[in-house]
Amino acid sequence: MRKTYKALQVSASGELELIEKKVQPPSSKQVLIEVEACGMCGADISDIDIAASSDVPRVPGHEVVGRIAAKGEDVPNCWKIGQRVGVGRLGGHCHECIQCRKGQFHLCTNQLYVGATCEGGYAEMMLVLHTGLIAIPDELSSEEAAPILCAGLATFNALKKSSAQAGDGVAILGIGGLGHMAVQYARKMGFKVIAIGRGEHDVKDLRHLGAHLFIDAGRTDSIDQLKSAGGVQAIISTVPTASDVAPFLSTLSPQGKVILLGAGKATLEISPGGLVGGERCVEGSFTGTPYETERALDFSVLFEVIPKVETTPMYLANEALAKLRAGKVNYRMVLIMRKELHADCS
Amino acid sequence: MRKTYKALQVSASGELELIEKKVQPPSSKQVLIEVEACGMCGADISDIDIAASSDVPRVPGHEVVGRIAAKGEDVPNCWKIGQRVGVGRLGGHCHECIQCRKGQFHLCTNQLYVGATCEGGYAEMMLVLHTGLIAIPDELSSEEAAPILCAGLATFNALKKSSAQAGDGVAILGIGGLGHMAVQYARKMGFKVIAIGRGEHDVKDLRHLGAHLFIDAGRTDSIDQLKSAGGVQAIISTVPTASDVAPFLSTLSPQGKVILLGAGKATLEISPGGLVGGERCVEGSFTGTPYETERALDFSVLFEVIPKVETTPMYLANEALAKLRAGKVNYRMVLIMRKELHADCS
Amino acid sequence: MRKTYKALQVSASGELELIEKKVQPPSSKQVLIEVEACGMCGADISDIDIAASSDVPRVPGHEVVGRIAAKGEDVPNCWKIGQRVGVGRLGGHCHECIQCRKGQFHLCTNQLYVGATCEGGYAEMMLVLHTGLIAIPDELSSEEAAPILCAGLATFNALKKSSAQAGDGVAILGIGGLGHMAVQYARKMGFKVIAIGRGEHDVKDLRHLGAHLFIDAGRTDSIDQLKSAGGVQAIISTVPTASDVAPFLSTLSPQGKVILLGAGKATLEISPGGLVGGERCVEGSFTGTPYETERALDFSVLFEVIPKVETTPMYLANEALAKLRAGKVNYRMVLIMRKELHADCS
Amino acid sequence: MRKTYKALQVSASGELELIEKKVQPPSSKQVLIEVEACGMCGADISDIDIAASSDVPRVPGHEVVGRIAAKGEDVPNCWKIGQRVGVGRLGGHCHECIQCRKGQFHLCTNQLYVGATCEGGYAEMMLVLHTGLIAIPDELSSEEAAPILCAGLATFNALKKSSAQAGDGVAILGIGGLGHMAVQYARKMGFKVIAIGRGEHDVKDLRHLGAHLFIDAGRTDSIDQLKSAGGVQAIISTVPTASDVAPFLSTLSPQGKVILLGAGKATLEISPGGLVGGERCVEGSFTGTPYETERALDFSVLFEVIPKVETTPMYLANEALAKLRAGKVNYRMVLIMRKELHADCS
Ligand SMILES: [Zn+2]
Ligand SMILES: [Zn+2]
Ligand SMILES: [Zn+2]
Ligand SMILES: [Zn+2]
Ligand SMILES: [Zn+2]
Ligand SMILES: [Zn+2]
Ligand SMILES: [Zn+2]
Ligand SMILES: [Zn+2]
Ligand SMILES: [Zn+2]
Ligand SMILES: [Zn+2]
Repeated sequence: MRKTYKALQVSASGELELIEKKVQPPSSKQVLIEVEACGMCGADISDIDIAASSDVPRVPGHEVVGRIAAKGEDVPNCWKIGQRVGVGRLGGHCHECIQCRKGQFHLCTNQLYVGATCEGGYAEMMLVLHTGLIAIPDELSSEEAAPILCAGLATFNALKKSSAQAGDGVAILGIGGLGHMAVQYARKMGFKVIAIGRGEHDVKDLRHLGAHLFIDAGRTDSIDQLKSAGGVQAIISTVPTASDVAPFLSTLSPQGKVILLGAGKATLEISPGGLVGGERCVEGSFTGTPYETERALDFSVLFEVIPKVETTPMYLANEALAKLRAGKVNYRMVLIMRKELHADCS
Repeated sequence: MRKTYKALQVSASGELELIEKKVQPPSSKQVLIEVEACGMCGADISDIDIAASSDVPRVPGHEVVGRIAAKGEDVPNCWKIGQRVGVGRLGGHCHECIQCRKGQFHLCTNQLYVGATCEGGYAEMMLVLHTGLIAIPDELSSEEAAPILCAGLATFNALKKSSAQAGDGVAILGIGGLGHMAVQYARKMGFKVIAIGRGEHDVKDLRHLGAHLFIDAGRTDSIDQLKSAGGVQAIISTVPTASDVAPFLSTLSPQGKVILLGAGKATLEISPGGLVGGERCVEGSFTGTPYETERALDFSVLFEVIPKVETTPMYLANEALAKLRAGKVNYRMVLIMRKELHADCS
Repeated sequence: MRKTYKALQVSASGELELIEKKVQPPSSKQVLIEVEACGMCGADISDIDIAASSDVPRVPGHEVVGRIAAKGEDVPNCWKIGQRVGVGRLGGHCHECIQCRKGQFHLCTNQLYVGATCEGGYAEMMLVLHTGLIAIPDELSSEEAAPILCAGLATFNALKKSSAQAGDGVAILGIGGLGHMAVQYARKMGFKVIAIGRGEHDVKDLRHLGAHLFIDAGRTDSIDQLKSAGGVQAIISTVPTASDVAPFLSTLSPQGKVILLGAGKATLEISPGGLVGGERCVEGSFTGTPYETERALDFSVLFEVIPKVETTPMYLANEALAKLRAGKVNYRMVLIMRKELHADCS
Repeated sequence: MRKTYKALQVSASGELELIEKKVQPPSSKQVLIEVEACGMCGADISDIDIAASSDVPRVPGHEVVGRIAAKGEDVPNCWKIGQRVGVGRLGGHCHECIQCRKGQFHLCTNQLYVGATCEGGYAEMMLVLHTGLIAIPDELSSEEAAPILCAGLATFNALKKSSAQAGDGVAILGIGGLGHMAVQYARKMGFKVIAIGRGEHDVKDLRHLGAHLFIDAGRTDSIDQLKSAGGVQAIISTVPTASDVAPFLSTLSPQGKVILLGAGKATLEISPGGLVGGERCVEGSFTGTPYETERALDFSVLFEVIPKVETTPMYLANEALAKLRAGKVNYRMVLIMRKELHADCS
């Protein structure tokens, strides 16, 4: 096995620095992964900004797909050397805390957050706790699978928790990395899909992804448009700023639900009258477990729900990051670690 | 049958005026009720204030129990002359709108709101649409049954919708007319009951009602107290001001739920982080159907969940109203219409 | 308006007799429908057999689509003369019984069963209680809409009650009128669809309807095949003989559910060990309400779930019935009442 | 630490033989428990009968409470030497199989069944996998806690899964070890409790346990009695013979549920008509996880739901077993391992 590997580490200036790191052997409960692809998620931006202002060097990235190169002695036999696996935002649960004993692993109070509280996947190699591992189906390439591990999972699970029934109207608020997965999943789950984005989106593209209707949130009459389309039973909000959600509460049908995916900083101001009079609900959904991620992957295979990605080699990561910060990525950017791609940067 | 009856009508000054009104025969879908008791709900205050500043005279009151004195020709046979019945906030649904066709009668878009958009029960006689009628079990006196029609129903249903499971901690926020019913119901449904009130409450009284723990919301460490008691799976908020609820969100266990009962004017400011990270939820619950009210009444009989009431004759209604406005009622005030009680005022 | 209309009435020999009946005006709560199409459901066979051995003449048929020709004075305004409407098995609920007051109209204890306890739609005209009416969307022809009113509704609702989640395996047992709708709905709702039929079905046809996999129940290894495909989270049984369902219980995943649609005569023998050890469940689902039927129709429009029908004019009804009895119908037979089609038989 | 301990091992004749066994140190994932009490469950009879006819010696018992005497190196820190803990039927899940990864630990496919596939608690010492451990609250004595680990848990969980709502009628079928816990839990959860037993039960006793009504299943009119009491929304069946359940299906309200706890040998014959027409359901419930057992224990403490037990020292185990086989135990027999109790038998 190789002795060193390349990784993109956050510098004090908030740039990604391509460095050479020494390969560490996995601890007893870890596997060492040879990374093939890592999606660049919106949350990476705040991870990078936080890391830049801290003293701890950090490799970001939490949509990681690769192959197991080595494994610790306590890693279960189901995980094999050479197997293609992934890890998302959740770096492995403890099996000991209350949430774990309830079986709610994604709410584990000892969870590592990949790319935030432990090293992430903007790198050729990465160590992962086996409880965080996700099996990747053969039908998906690594760059297709990677965005499903965070963006796909988050929206797939939110839709399952939405209480919306077949044929109900479901609005997807925000059409980026998460939203474009939500539109596809929602369509294939049998919802009437209303995509709510900002004008720059190609309506034809959204229709192809599965939206029955597109509403431009930038227009002053967007709320009225949605209401006149009959309102919706659920709103899946993928936008980072909660205050952008509030105006849409009035378009919820009675007993409808808003599901928030992005935490953001902004507070959400709700008029209780709308909640009470129509028995509406505002709820958070938080990523999901490895088992659930495998179900999202299986669904993607079975129903051909494939992320739309742009790929970039490691040595162009800062350009990709700039595009991400500018909101110019065409749905999802994925870093590719294949050696031939960065030969010239070594 | 008598030709006239006494009623308490809202005057321009926001007082209750004891007037004599002509008895009207019921329309084909109505019954005429001889009222025996009518609870005075917190919502009556705003009904009265709104009526005072409008041109339409209004009789308030939406926790009405009485006997059927006459019925229209289209009223189903299950309702009998002489039968004791009640009506709560919802004055009768239409059976035709979308919500009615879904079976969600309490969300009927053609609903009358008793005491607000149609005449209420601060009166000796009252007309009610038969779809709003509730059968009253013999085991309850009229003054005991009346507060169950709004305060009891609202909290009974909220607890059923709370998703809390047997043994889970449930906080009751606000210990007045609604809250003191919520505490009793919650205890008898098998929850760990935490009553959150303002210092003036007698802790012994609350313990007798069923609270396992009492927390004084007026103390600066009330949030910490609740957290150190292990947090709660659900919060049933009966307070009118939503902003009083926000601080308690942080005491909710993961996947916990806040249920709002009071709409109020104030907005609720929520930090999305708490909702998303712990998959928490803020939800409204809106009174309930006549069928559900009968279930609340049956439960009250079976488990001896009886409202604590002060009673007042009609001619002292303004004194009772003043006490209600001052928040000095000992849980629930109920107007009693028995003739002997107002003989002297005629 | 015409004075008489043609109807197919059950004779003592169990044949359908084309007779001329006098048009009756609707009662106050009824509409008179000019029938355009009526599906022939498997349940019609037993309706016909029962009627044949009784003294009461009966017109069968409970998948009826037509236009309102006249309406009683108490019929709500939302139903208009000339509007295209339908009625399924449930002939109108009472709004007064316990189930109606709960909002569970399909379980109304005073319900009429169309074609069984009241006149059905194998006729040019038919009287229907307004509470049984279903609005038909313009996008569907009458012969496409008719089978949705029983076969479509039953399977659409069963799938919604199945507790299966997006991507879960769902087996459709029996691929006839109901089953071919179930396969389509299940696919469009995001399930992994396993169709279980008898050899005669064209596998290509089933794949086109949406089945991911076809299993021939006639083969001795059908259970093993299903198990090796990973089992299923739900089984929707459309077969009339419950005993044909029992062997498939062993293919249910833990916490899986069997939903029975057909009551039949045969009893179902269950080994409790399988239910208890894997927390499995056997459940009945019973058609649905008019509101739910409209949701099934909307879903059919939005996701192009269209029944495959053979049509027949009234004067060939006995031939169609013979085909139905023989199990030779290509998914669904629909009677067409357009005048030009039976001119020659008058 | 002592070198040997006493255990009750099944002999070829199906008796319990008091033997001396060598203490084994725990493996890395086990704890060694010094047993204080072990309930005698109905399932022990079949465990004993199976062990008697097999070559493998077996110590039965799966309601075990004791103190941790030693622990393996991989046992989490939350489990302390000297701590009082318990183990029920489930001897520890694997954390690796599909059900474990779903968080459904009680359905783990690698589970050990205490007293059946691994050594049980009719002994002074016992080894337990740490994933099977349950913390015992101080408020309960060991003999009170023991029966909660199987009988209490099974019925507590079944009631939580029953879908019955506060005030709904719930029938408890079979009033023995499980049934007498079910009656208490059901009452404290707010159900209308109907106990269905065989004549020998003291009605006063059942009323004290919380039953609102007692029905003698041995009387020919028991079904009619239950129907005239208004039927029930759920039936919790604790009887070993499923065929004894079938007659009661007809007393289930529409959308009601039967929950089976005992697997037994007999098959259950269901008439599909009753399931379909009323949308009823027959479901299995299978014990529960350690986390859920702790919730049952907490509930028992909070609401004073205490098993009624007879206790017996180890040297009288065969007499106790005979009583159990004869159905003569007064609710629950518990073996007590305190040394002073068996001094005379050494
Ligand atoms: Zn992410
Ligand atoms: Zn944990
Ligand atoms: Zn009120
Ligand atoms: Zn309505
Ligand atoms: Zn919610
Ligand atoms: Zn049918
Ligand atoms: Zn009815
Ligand atoms: Zn079920
Ligand atoms: Zn047991
Ligand atoms: Zn397992």
